[in-house]
Amino acid sequence: MYGYTGKILWVDLTRGKAEGKDLNPGLARNYLGGMGLCMRLLYDLTDVDTDPLGPENVLIFAAGPVTGTSWPGSGRLQVAAKSPLTGLAGYSNSGGHFSPHIKYAGFDAIVVVGRSEKPVYLFVEDGRAEIRDASDLWGLDTWETEDVLRERHGEDVRVAAIGQAGENLVKFAAIVTGKGRVAARAGIGAVMGSKKLKAVALRGEGGVKVADPRGFEEMLEEAMRKIDGSPFSETYRDLGTPLLVLPMNVIGRFPTKNHYMGSFERAEEISGEKIVWGYRVAKRACFSCRFHCKNILKLGDTIGDHPEYETICSFGSNILIDDPEFIIRMNWLSNRLGMDTISLGGTIAWAMECYERGLLTREDTGGLELKWGDRDLVERLVRMTAFREGFGDVLAEGVRRASQIIGRGTERYAMHVKGLEIPAQDGRAQKSMGLAHATAARGADHLTHSTFLDEVGFEEAIRERYGEQYLPEMADRFSPKYKGIMAKDCEDLTAAVSSMVICVTAGWLFPPLFYWEDLARLYTVVTGIEVSVSEMKRTAERIVNIRRAYLIKHGVTRASDSLPERFTKEPAPAGGCKGQIVELDQMLDEYYEARGWNVETGLIPRGKLIELGLEDVADDLARLGRLP
Amino acid sequence: MYGYTGKILWVDLTRGKAEGKDLNPGLARNYLGGMGLCMRLLYDLTDVDTDPLGPENVLIFAAGPVTGTSWPGSGRLQVAAKSPLTGLAGYSNSGGHFSPHIKYAGFDAIVVVGRSEKPVYLFVEDGRAEIRDASDLWGLDTWETEDVLRERHGEDVRVAAIGQAGENLVKFAAIVTGKGRVAARAGIGAVMGSKKLKAVALRGEGGVKVADPRGFEEMLEEAMRKIDGSPFSETYRDLGTPLLVLPMNVIGRFPTKNHYMGSFERAEEISGEKIVWGYRVAKRACFSCRFHCKNILKLGDTIGDHPEYETICSFGSNILIDDPEFIIRMNWLSNRLGMDTISLGGTIAWAMECYERGLLTREDTGGLELKWGDRDLVERLVRMTAFREGFGDVLAEGVRRASQIIGRGTERYAMHVKGLEIPAQDGRAQKSMGLAHATAARGADHLTHSTFLDEVGFEEAIRERYGEQYLPEMADRFSPKYKGIMAKDCEDLTAAVSSMVICVTAGWLFPPLFYWEDLARLYTVVTGIEVSVSEMKRTAERIVNIRRAYLIKHGVTRASDSLPERFTKEPAPAGGCKGQIVELDQMLDEYYEARGWNVETGLIPRGKLIELGLEDVADDLARLGRLP
Repeated sequence: MYGYTGKILWVDLTRGKAEGKDLNPGLARNYLGGMGLCMRLLYDLTDVDTDPLGPENVLIFAAGPVTGTSWPGSGRLQVAAKSPLTGLAGYSNSGGHFSPHIKYAGFDAIVVVGRSEKPVYLFVEDGRAEIRDASDLWGLDTWETEDVLRERHGEDVRVAAIGQAGENLVKFAAIVTGKGRVAARAGIGAVMGSKKLKAVALRGEGGVKVADPRGFEEMLEEAMRKIDGSPFSETYRDLGTPLLVLPMNVIGRFPTKNHYMGSFERAEEISGEKIVWGYRVAKRACFSCRFHCKNILKLGDTIGDHPEYETICSFGSNILIDDPEFIIRMNWLSNRLGMDTISLGGTIAWAMECYERGLLTREDTGGLELKWGDRDLVERLVRMTAFREGFGDVLAEGVRRASQIIGRGTERYAMHVKGLEIPAQDGRAQKSMGLAHATAARGADHLTHSTFLDEVGFEEAIRERYGEQYLPEMADRFSPKYKGIMAKDCEDLTAAVSSMVICVTAGWLFPPLFYWEDLARLYTVVTGIEVSVSEMKRTAERIVNIRRAYLIKHGVTRASDSLPERFTKEPAPAGGCKGQIVELDQMLDEYYEARGWNVETGLIPRGKLIELGLEDVADDLARLGRLP
Repeated sequence: MYGYTGKILWVDLTRGKAEGKDLNPGLARNYLGGMGLCMRLLYDLTDVDTDPLGPENVLIFAAGPVTGTSWPGSGRLQVAAKSPLTGLAGYSNSGGHFSPHIKYAGFDAIVVVGRSEKPVYLFVEDGRAEIRDASDLWGLDTWETEDVLRERHGEDVRVAAIGQAGENLVKFAAIVTGKGRVAARAGIGAVMGSKKLKAVALRGEGGVKVADPRGFEEMLEEAMRKIDGSPFSETYRDLGTPLLVLPMNVIGRFPTKNHYMGSFERAEEISGEKIVWGYRVAKRACFSCRFHCKNILKLGDTIGDHPEYETICSFGSNILIDDPEFIIRMNWLSNRLGMDTISLGGTIAWAMECYERGLLTREDTGGLELKWGDRDLVERLVRMTAFREGFGDVLAEGVRRASQIIGRGTERYAMHVKGLEIPAQDGRAQKSMGLAHATAARGADHLTHSTFLDEVGFEEAIRERYGEQYLPEMADRFSPKYKGIMAKDCEDLTAAVSSMVICVTAGWLFPPLFYWEDLARLYTVVTGIEVSVSEMKRTAERIVNIRRAYLIKHGVTRASDSLPERFTKEPAPAGGCKGQIVELDQMLDEYYEARGWNVETGLIPRGKLIELGLEDVADDLARLGRLP
């Protein structure tokens, strides 16, 4: 099959077996790869009673049909498992070079089930896989693990590893590839740790064949022209996501003091310009990228990746810290220990607010004073969390569970949706983002929908995609109107892009250079399977709907698609979104309607599932009484 | 023809006609495109009595078979004409986005002959070309010209323009594309000015077809892997050529005080790190590049490209200036006025040395004191040169002619070869570079041969390419041994790469990621013309030899392949190459022998020309008595 290797590597760690099996062509056709493949497999292989940290959970590393080709942004990796943080569908995505090498090693995906008794790592090379002893790696951080494995298997081996946080089942532990590219969210690294799988190292000499190389080259050439002609490319090439600090601060979307507000008075101190320009020693690019958004920084004797925009908020504005060097160091520390900086930072911010409000005391914290902006304290908490020491053992549960453990009304200050901590995007400053946080399947998230169109007002793209009649409201970040329609379309598009697997940023969604026509055409030239725009849209909807169905099985309804009251009831007190709230209900109505879901319950009608070819899912939900 | 559009746009400015004519397939086959096409056309269309600034000279803008495809580094432009600076073959190369759009507009090359009475510009769009009045553009600088033409024809129009220097026939005037990508050397811009051609603006919707898209995609994928896996990529992505300042200063190859020595005690002040990190506001990339080596700097209210390594020397170490902001500003000023910073800087450095030595006086300079390091003076000289005001009228002739005008022994301090000023590479610090300067067809040049292999000792590449027997000498930058062999091979390779047309840096020569096998394979997959490695080598040699034959027609012999005595007789007084001279004679012997040229005269034997299919050239040289 063009675009695919046609093989999935199945690894059973309980039985100590790893073998390649044919990829079901129907699965590839109906779910593309990446996100879609992950969601179908998750639906089929786990259930309501699956313990996310039990051997019965699955951990999937998935490439897609575009992965490893020379298409720009084709270096992304999609990972999935049932999330220990949310108990729902957990998925996470990272850049770098790991994913193309899954395909070069002969596979479209690696599915890991079971649990090893002793620590192991997986070594994959040219179609063969071995489960090897990792006793000597257990206890190492992700950088050390990568160093040892490259020393052992050669400089060109590509590594995905967990750090101590994953070993210690920190609920928001991450998987780190190439030391700095992190599949961070939803506790994917804890699942890997629960399986006693320290790392996956792989290398391959295989290639990827596209079906219509001429069409592919024509598309590539056009893509080069589009990307090179975009004014957005210039600044993004320079700074990467840290470029967002200053503009997001201006519009009030840069969370400050545990999401109390969206503007930080000392944002200048921790701007992307300060951080990147002040410490950069080199640029880095993911596989086959045309943007090169990664910066290598040097601080003291250490060299490593820049903190992303999200991390600058987590260790900066959201806990009232204005020290760029501290943020750089905490990013590296979190990457080494292997933790999601969004969840980690959100949990620490919650603790600080609760401490300030007297809801948390030194008795809870083992004597620690949790003061805003205390850098030594934060560094200590980061380590304590990774090793589950003292109060770190509470923090390691993530903000929802931690607040439930403490009780006393601290739940109110736990900034999460469905158990996943809210990222560095204040929904009051951009209403579609508030809707996205409430409805994203993995919990509060900005990248499930990628609704960037009202961020800085891409009127032209909105006009082309949806039509004049939606302007000016759809482009207006403060208006809740038409955001449900936009969110539905952006979520479908992101699902398809993440199934191909292509970088969401590298031209697809932000800036809006490509759209459905391009995606359908790209799939067709890569795989040789003629796909129309409407079929591609239907496939994307299928992926979003099976993902939602998985959540519905687990009890999710409209009531779960909520936000902390801070966003829906407390007008932003100051800054770029002063006076704004998220008008969630209004947007939810529109969103469910656009989705063809039941507006009152958020459940999926049988008819919608049938329309998407998900009759088996409909039967499944019917059996559980989870149809509207 | 795959890889080609099959059309050359012929423009006769005397007659006011522009029309597309079929590209001779034999020409394409035997000379590839770019450099090869330029050299054959130059040989055929001009002669010994052609005045470089007369209407009979030709000005060629050439793309190549790879230009405009999605191959990395396929955005380069090759320009050529008989040089007003050397009176020999003039060629120059720039990056950016202009060249791909020559092909998208429907042509492989644009050949301009004749001379317009009034200023004109050429507007090319989708296979059609118009000669338009440019009276309103005459007198504008290159940035202003680009702005006006983009305003007039749309933001997506690609522009190549001359500034006031080109209008005023400054002998080292440049052609500037996209405001910052400069085809600078050999006075190409003066030729354009002599034709009263202010600019070429083009746009096209056409594409480029490769013959074997599957093979192409496979090569692309491999190229991604090689480039992304190279440790060199990281720093080069960050800084671009300015990264060279510090390492070149250490090894003594960073010309200081009119090439007196190769290390500048204040190099730290004008390092790439200082200049790029201190003023960068964005990154930029040429068409379809994987390196993105361009940095956009901001100084005051001005935003523009970084000064390249060469320019940092020209306005820095070589005239004893350690002010990064001055260098940035002078780079922009030179780009706006449209001058080659190497020749301009070299001519100013000569004047300063001669003034210090009392060979030049205030009588010559119109009262100006030419003191080393005087920034106000330099800025004044730059403007005076572009407008040929006062002593600027002498400087505008380039260092050879200027020293001849002044006389009194100032010729001794004119650092040029064959009339072209020596670039920022002290051949005493890297012997192959000394040989390259002496033998490059356009005069002193580092990019005709691109002999980077002994720069920092690429032992591994040398071992693979030439064999163990040449080590350690070939990798030793101080050893003259085997440098003739290396220079011959590198020159051939560069000629072929520049004919394809691909960027010399973007993976081909520095770092040495690709070689003859890759080049032959790339040509085959792009054009569908099956070419073996030995055929590709023979084609490259053909291009180098017809270029040499053109020089020989004009009187060049071994005696012309010389260097100023500063390099061959004065051991470097201090710095990283202290005590070294360029052992030119020894290297010349080896080089001519490797080339199969007559060692005593540097002439090409008939047999060699016949072997390369250049019988007509052999007859021509025989008629002129220029065979050995």
